[in-house]
Amino acid sequence: MVALCHPSLHLFFYPSSNFRSSFYSPYKTPISLPKLCASLIAREEVPEAEEPPLPSSLRGVDRKPSSIPEGAVTPLSVDFNAWYLDVIAKAELADYGPVRGTMVIRPYGYAIWEAIQEYLNAKFKETGHSNMYFPQFIPYSFIEKEASHVEGFSPELAVVTIGGGKELEEKLVVRPTSETIVNHMFTQWIQSYRDLPIMINQWANVTRWEMRTKPFIRTLEFLWQEGHTAHATAEEAEKEALQMIDVYKKFAYEQAAIPVIAGRKSKAETFAGASCTYTIEAMMGDRKALQAGTSHNLGQNFSRAFETQFTDENGERQHVWQTSWAISTRFVGGIIMTHGDDTGLMLPPRLAPIQVVIVPIWKKGNERIGVLSTAASVEQILKSAEIKVKIDNSEQRTPGWKFNFWEMKGVPVRIEIGPRDVANGSVVVSRRDVPGKLGKDLGISMEPSVLIAHVKSTLEDVQASLLQRATLFRDRNIVDVSSYEELKEAISEGKWARGPWSASDVEEQKVKEETGATIRCFPFDQPEGSKVCFMTGNPAEEVAIFARSY
Amino acid sequence: MVALCHPSLHLFFYPSSNFRSSFYSPYKTPISLPKLCASLIAREEVPEAEEPPLPSSLRGVDRKPSSIPEGAVTPLSVDFNAWYLDVIAKAELADYGPVRGTMVIRPYGYAIWEAIQEYLNAKFKETGHSNMYFPQFIPYSFIEKEASHVEGFSPELAVVTIGGGKELEEKLVVRPTSETIVNHMFTQWIQSYRDLPIMINQWANVTRWEMRTKPFIRTLEFLWQEGHTAHATAEEAEKEALQMIDVYKKFAYEQAAIPVIAGRKSKAETFAGASCTYTIEAMMGDRKALQAGTSHNLGQNFSRAFETQFTDENGERQHVWQTSWAISTRFVGGIIMTHGDDTGLMLPPRLAPIQVVIVPIWKKGNERIGVLSTAASVEQILKSAEIKVKIDNSEQRTPGWKFNFWEMKGVPVRIEIGPRDVANGSVVVSRRDVPGKLGKDLGISMEPSVLIAHVKSTLEDVQASLLQRATLFRDRNIVDVSSYEELKEAISEGKWARGPWSASDVEEQKVKEETGATIRCFPFDQPEGSKVCFMTGNPAEEVAIFARSY
Repeated sequence: MVALCHPSLHLFFYPSSNFRSSFYSPYKTPISLPKLCASLIAREEVPEAEEPPLPSSLRGVDRKPSSIPEGAVTPLSVDFNAWYLDVIAKAELADYGPVRGTMVIRPYGYAIWEAIQEYLNAKFKETGHSNMYFPQFIPYSFIEKEASHVEGFSPELAVVTIGGGKELEEKLVVRPTSETIVNHMFTQWIQSYRDLPIMINQWANVTRWEMRTKPFIRTLEFLWQEGHTAHATAEEAEKEALQMIDVYKKFAYEQAAIPVIAGRKSKAETFAGASCTYTIEAMMGDRKALQAGTSHNLGQNFSRAFETQFTDENGERQHVWQTSWAISTRFVGGIIMTHGDDTGLMLPPRLAPIQVVIVPIWKKGNERIGVLSTAASVEQILKSAEIKVKIDNSEQRTPGWKFNFWEMKGVPVRIEIGPRDVANGSVVVSRRDVPGKLGKDLGISMEPSVLIAHVKSTLEDVQASLLQRATLFRDRNIVDVSSYEELKEAISEGKWARGPWSASDVEEQKVKEETGATIRCFPFDQPEGSKVCFMTGNPAEEVAIFARSY
Repeated sequence: MVALCHPSLHLFFYPSSNFRSSFYSPYKTPISLPKLCASLIAREEVPEAEEPPLPSSLRGVDRKPSSIPEGAVTPLSVDFNAWYLDVIAKAELADYGPVRGTMVIRPYGYAIWEAIQEYLNAKFKETGHSNMYFPQFIPYSFIEKEASHVEGFSPELAVVTIGGGKELEEKLVVRPTSETIVNHMFTQWIQSYRDLPIMINQWANVTRWEMRTKPFIRTLEFLWQEGHTAHATAEEAEKEALQMIDVYKKFAYEQAAIPVIAGRKSKAETFAGASCTYTIEAMMGDRKALQAGTSHNLGQNFSRAFETQFTDENGERQHVWQTSWAISTRFVGGIIMTHGDDTGLMLPPRLAPIQVVIVPIWKKGNERIGVLSTAASVEQILKSAEIKVKIDNSEQRTPGWKFNFWEMKGVPVRIEIGPRDVANGSVVVSRRDVPGKLGKDLGISMEPSVLIAHVKSTLEDVQASLLQRATLFRDRNIVDVSSYEELKEAISEGKWARGPWSASDVEEQKVKEETGATIRCFPFDQPEGSKVCFMTGNPAEEVAIFARSY
């Protein structure tokens, strides 16, 4: 395995041109900067090597390429797509289902989704939403009721035509999203303003018959949550749509360590049936954009199509104002493609199913019992502090194999315990994000309070470091453009282009056809001062971000 | 609303004939018997009344029938099915979906399912299982691979024939259960004995095209968990299948307060594709049986059909031994039909989304602020003890309306706070399961430690009381039979019949045709001594339980 440096690490230390990097980082997670930067700079100074750093060379652990489990991944810089698929296979995140475009989410990949669910589910409840469940079969006629909705979704539908051995009178759509059936029910539940707001969410599977699929990113069936709300006023609905995109943004920054850019979609990119779509856009390791979560202000589009009305305080009948918002298993793909490296997956500690792996190391038979029992007591110490810890004491594999395997799985922290550690009452703590000696803390006492404090602070450091790296990478790869030529150049280099835009849908389409880039969003954070559209020379109110995307 | 006494309460105090009631209650949850029995007996002694008891008559709360929210439910004794559907509608548990036989699970009903999930999910992980997710679309050909599986499921399939606007080459089944696709994947993941056991679970929706549907009990689409395991030996698989039915049984007793009978299915009632099915059978309020959870020993049936093989320690190729096990949203229906009464739903505290509702009561405007602020501080006190509490301080409804509403919703404990309570620093605590004065504790101090202890102990009393009532009801309605005539009589009275059985499948079918009853199970708990089959007069090894069922 050839462990190349991250292809764009050298970009981290050049200052951004027009925008300070902090300008687009509204969530300033407290970061212990001196320590972090030291490790980053130190990493930067390591000369590029043909051989991977051997973090355990001190103790003679075999890390030769031949000991790598089931072969290495394709280097990220050589073929990003092949690297992505290799990581998914070798870290045992997912597998292909028997039907084209479907995916089996394996336990380790599903555990990341469970961590996402746990956080978001609590936030949804805190913000006043209740979970419920709508059937997945929707009468075909429902989809046709909202004009732009049917236009957007009809090419992607899976249709049930046979039930219980008989041809069905009305074909049933397997839900691609639930706005239509939700409105059908809301119409029955809502009579007066006293019934409002309704604020609900469901965790469910959805089906979209996609032609080009990719595990996690775009699959025929995927898992998601979809929130649906109904309000008495346009203002309330707008406030809700903005609140939920903010919940997503905080989640991305604080849990996934992904510095997304939040903003508004252009008309062309708005959800089929929405008045306005808000989005969080993430930059992947290949610098393509990933739409990682959306929140729609649906206006009265669905309530007019389904006659979802209420009697207001003055006794007048009005259509409700609605929102919907979703995050899906696609986000797991976003985590892989944001943080992974040539060694494999790299997980943010707050979402990692395993935060610490303990690898016991012994050579002579008489060392075995002491090492294993010490490892078990370290495991108990960390468990008592609610750290997610796993001990790998299988005897079929060498320590070197285990190091590689758990690095591939992206476990943020490894604890090594050998006979000398047992004698000294100390352990070695290694960070997944900093290879080699630099990422190792030797001689950490096993005294519970010391060990727990050290491990917790290391996990926080890794969490902050991942966000900082990703933020630096993002900001180095956004180019401010003031002409179409500059945009074309930035896009051709694989970067994102940001510039003032007030041109037409036709011109937006032209950019897409000529460069492959679309407007990802008009970011909420806008530079001050007057602006001139880079395409038309007319005044512009906002900058837009253009990029190629997944 | 006419609140009749539970139709079978009078049956509680007659001793069972051959079997002591404790014989079939292996989970002897500690119950504070003297107090409980006192309340039961006291309830028993209340003469049947045309009018409901007025638990709040002391304070002049209006409980006249006219104040009942959206009308009362059909009395349980008049029409059990209508009562069930009324409770589901009025307690806002579920609604009908637009497609025949589908159900929308509303927030309150879904919250019960979430409580079930929370408990079981933790137990599955404790017993070594990981969650994952398999696609719901299964190639039609998979279903046909296991002979008895296709026979059992093909009449119930929903089939997708169109995807992305085109007729599909191979039709896709919307999963009715996942054994086939699970085995397809296991075959790829399992090579050697080192890969075993595999122990996984998924929370998912499944589809069965049922002709006669009923909310929660039998719907076209339902939610469930399905566990799937693969083992190297027959013994391990058998142990696993038994372990999981025991997890379900403990859940039913300890969380849902449902005294299920666990046992083995007859051959005719075994899951399509299993070697052996274990079940927990619950007696509903109308004395029909509900199959509330099953665990299957699949033997090598699916591994032979899908060639799921491993190399054992001797280098020999063997087929794996498997299990699968499931509990579904049907269980919510079981809770409703076990504990509900003419006042509505009655929830076991451990699964209740709201354990305590606080109803503030005031008449004069100057009492309002004091009552509301006291209610809010009581709410905070209970929240601090992790009691699930809700305060109903809406001003659009009277206290009487609220009493009825939250009783309909089955909230186990109500706290009433009026101006006199504020002055005295005390509250009134009322139990949902004991109507009238007998269920009321007056003058409970608001001092946090006193109040918390009192509420917690009341919740535990309600939990234990529900299990005790249901157990007494069950045992009074199981008749030990020693002839077919006795069985016919018991079944015609709506009871369960239990008797020694060693007759043939043909004779089992005859019983079904002539009485409507099926063998629910051969219970694990068997009476001692030699037995004679009540049908044939031949020796019998076991007693079987016969009943009409859902």
